[in-house]
Amino acid sequence: MKKVLVTGATGFVGRRMLGDLVERGYDVHAVSRNAPTAPDPATSWHAADLFNGAQMRALVASVAPSHLLHLAWHTQHGEFWTAPQNFNWVAASLELLEAFRAAGGRRVVTAGTCAEYDWSAGNCSERDTPLRPASVYGVCKDALRALQEPFCARFGLSCAWGRVFQLYGPGEHPARLVPSVITALLQGREAHCTEGTQVRDFLYVEDAASAFAALLDSEVVGAVNIGSGRPVTIKDVVAAIAVQLHRPELVRLGAIPERPGEPPRLIAETLRLTEEVGWKPRQNLDDGLRHTIAWLRENIVRPRSG
Amino acid sequence: MKKVLVTGATGFVGRRMLGDLVERGYDVHAVSRNAPTAPDPATSWHAADLFNGAQMRALVASVAPSHLLHLAWHTQHGEFWTAPQNFNWVAASLELLEAFRAAGGRRVVTAGTCAEYDWSAGNCSERDTPLRPASVYGVCKDALRALQEPFCARFGLSCAWGRVFQLYGPGEHPARLVPSVITALLQGREAHCTEGTQVRDFLYVEDAASAFAALLDSEVVGAVNIGSGRPVTIKDVVAAIAVQLHRPELVRLGAIPERPGEPPRLIAETLRLTEEVGWKPRQNLDDGLRHTIAWLRENIVRPRSG
Repeated sequence: MKKVLVTGATGFVGRRMLGDLVERGYDVHAVSRNAPTAPDPATSWHAADLFNGAQMRALVASVAPSHLLHLAWHTQHGEFWTAPQNFNWVAASLELLEAFRAAGGRRVVTAGTCAEYDWSAGNCSERDTPLRPASVYGVCKDALRALQEPFCARFGLSCAWGRVFQLYGPGEHPARLVPSVITALLQGREAHCTEGTQVRDFLYVEDAASAFAALLDSEVVGAVNIGSGRPVTIKDVVAAIAVQLHRPELVRLGAIPERPGEPPRLIAETLRLTEEVGWKPRQNLDDGLRHTIAWLRENIVRPRSG
Repeated sequence: MKKVLVTGATGFVGRRMLGDLVERGYDVHAVSRNAPTAPDPATSWHAADLFNGAQMRALVASVAPSHLLHLAWHTQHGEFWTAPQNFNWVAASLELLEAFRAAGGRRVVTAGTCAEYDWSAGNCSERDTPLRPASVYGVCKDALRALQEPFCARFGLSCAWGRVFQLYGPGEHPARLVPSVITALLQGREAHCTEGTQVRDFLYVEDAASAFAALLDSEVVGAVNIGSGRPVTIKDVVAAIAVQLHRPELVRLGAIPERPGEPPRLIAETLRLTEEVGWKPRQNLDDGLRHTIAWLRENIVRPRSG
């Protein structure tokens, strides 16, 4: 039987992936520092700290997974770009790979990032776009990828690397673009945005989870962009939210400056994902935003009583 | 006072470096799995396993070095090119850097390798030659360098990276070119060699040790080639040995094939080392070979009694 160990299983993407993996016939083992309070009964949960080598090795040896889906990383909003924990995650990930191999593991998929690419490229292709990470986060992910491939080759493991672009959806950090605009408009406040001319690749988080599950379950090796492949400007995303909430007058484009280093265009070429993995997004932007608005209305922006 | 922790201190280069560092005014702390039987009294020796995180952190915290000279790595002759331990050394080195930073360290110099370069370049320049490691060893060293630089930048540490080319001298593994040819000729056996047309950069091991000490003691940052900068063919090295031992008739050039993947030319550009670090080799090839022959005569090829 296919048995997968999922790290980062309580994360933004990870927690939506477990059902996809169960559907694909995996015996799913999820690991996080603290098991969730109401875990899915179809999944085995394990509490372990991946920075504790002895604890991690004991877990991997006892689960003896055939597959590893390694999503865990330091993802604290804003500061993850430069956080020192990025370096710790490279070391911990190498030790995880070693434990997985020692336990008889056969296939690994790890979460990478569009921040590995040279952002002057605009359209990012796994084959042709140079890797030139400009952030600590990108450097560390790129270094891990550069190590994972020869590690797996050395030991006869199959491996792939899913490069994540811009995600959105229920559970995203409230300070990020989509939830902050939705929340402001739901609360009747102005949404202060940049000019919004940047072109981005937005993928609904449940689609990202399903893409990772499909990639794991395929035999595709190497880097694969996890994106929609559909360019959209930030201002069009904001406009789509405003249309759904009927509050276009609250949108203030140009009210805040762009962050330095933001590329004008950052789009995933998704030929590998669509043709080789055979996966396509299920949600378009309007549907994904609708789900996100419904979730935020329910979970964050409850009307105050009294 | 400047206090340096030297890893790999019993290794081919490391054990020759301690005196240079003492002369440069460092309080020298050497670490190895097993302390040597007759340690230099000017050096403090510590026995620790760098793969044991708790042991390593305790050592670094107790020494609290201002400088780190990180030479330890898996160097087993022949198999180090593909050894799985290369990956373990990346993780262990990252943890060492983290412990060094946490203990208040200020400057790191780590041993890199010419195997990080694209070997089709011929002359390798730190500034211009692409990095394209073709071996597990080169990939792992390159990944560590790509991590060390932003790690040190993130924490305000100064760091450099000494890329070692071909070394020779007393204590080199007996299966390698220089000691195997010398030993054969001293024993009156034929020395079977390749055609020997490959052009290489040979540096005497004591010079390499002194170059690392000079690099550590400088303020130069980034990658610095540790080489002689003097091209010499393998057959000329063999001929120089044969002349010194008066046994040219025992040399068999072309008797064995070149190893696959051997580049025709691999030379260090040494402008950074000579101009920025201000260091030059003390031994030319003839003198270095003379010392090596004397050492092998004394230590390996003793005349049989009776």
